[in-house]
Amino acid sequence: MEQRISLVTLGVRDLERARTFYEALGWTTGAEPDADVVFFQTGGAVLALWDRASLADDSGVPDAGGWGGVTLAHNVRSPAEVDALIEEARAAGAMITHEPGETFWGGYSGAFADPDGHPWEVAHNPRWELRDDGSVVLPD
Amino acid sequence: MEQRISLVTLGVRDLERARTFYEALGWTTGAEPDADVVFFQTGGAVLALWDRASLADDSGVPDAGGWGGVTLAHNVRSPAEVDALIEEARAAGAMITHEPGETFWGGYSGAFADPDGHPWEVAHNPRWELRDDGSVVLPD
Repeated sequence: MEQRISLVTLGVRDLERARTFYEALGWTTGAEPDADVVFFQTGGAVLALWDRASLADDSGVPDAGGWGGVTLAHNVRSPAEVDALIEEARAAGAMITHEPGETFWGGYSGAFADPDGHPWEVAHNPRWELRDDGSVVLPD
Repeated sequence: MEQRISLVTLGVRDLERARTFYEALGWTTGAEPDADVVFFQTGGAVLALWDRASLADDSGVPDAGGWGGVTLAHNVRSPAEVDALIEEARAAGAMITHEPGETFWGGYSGAFADPDGHPWEVAHNPRWELRDDGSVVLPD
């Protein structure tokens, strides 16, 4: 198995609501307005929004109904960028599940949940390099 | 918000078990043997394994205990590669939640769950280009 993730699919209850939220954050998709799955190109991977019941069925798993142990993160280049993005998410209607602050691991982060409760951590890690395209390079 | 995912963190009940599983699939990490979080570089993003209760707390969300509406996918270049990777996952101890077969969207896929129940779809999508590094390029 090659060491990569091709696609992260978020199960959603209301596709239009979810799509509108990510578009309000500035994301763009080539999906048609009536598409039943919405793909966003994100660097080398893809984020997809799809009906949650269909995703559970397709994945062959029962749905526990809430959060299931997966959190996405979006790293930025400074604590001030964390604050700004959390405010942007709040303005777009996100619930802020963790107000920005210093972390136990020496960084600075906050977290918001999208309209379906999928959490995103927004973090500045002073030990992680971000390339110009925003992708992360782990330290050696 | 830039259109990217920096990090996908999977909450796990037993870090050693989870790490051993991904290493059995051929993934490598620079994490120390006693590290309490394990990072795998995957193209421009990072996959992390971390204690599930800590992740829930850090994300500011209650834990529903099972699957929570997120599925990862690993795309490959042919149906035969789907079959091979599903067998590799089975040999590494994964539960196969969806045996490989043709899909309603014109591709071929199967799915396995890692030791913590996090599902991975393994898919061949004839309409999606994979770069040499395995990253996905959506069609225009």
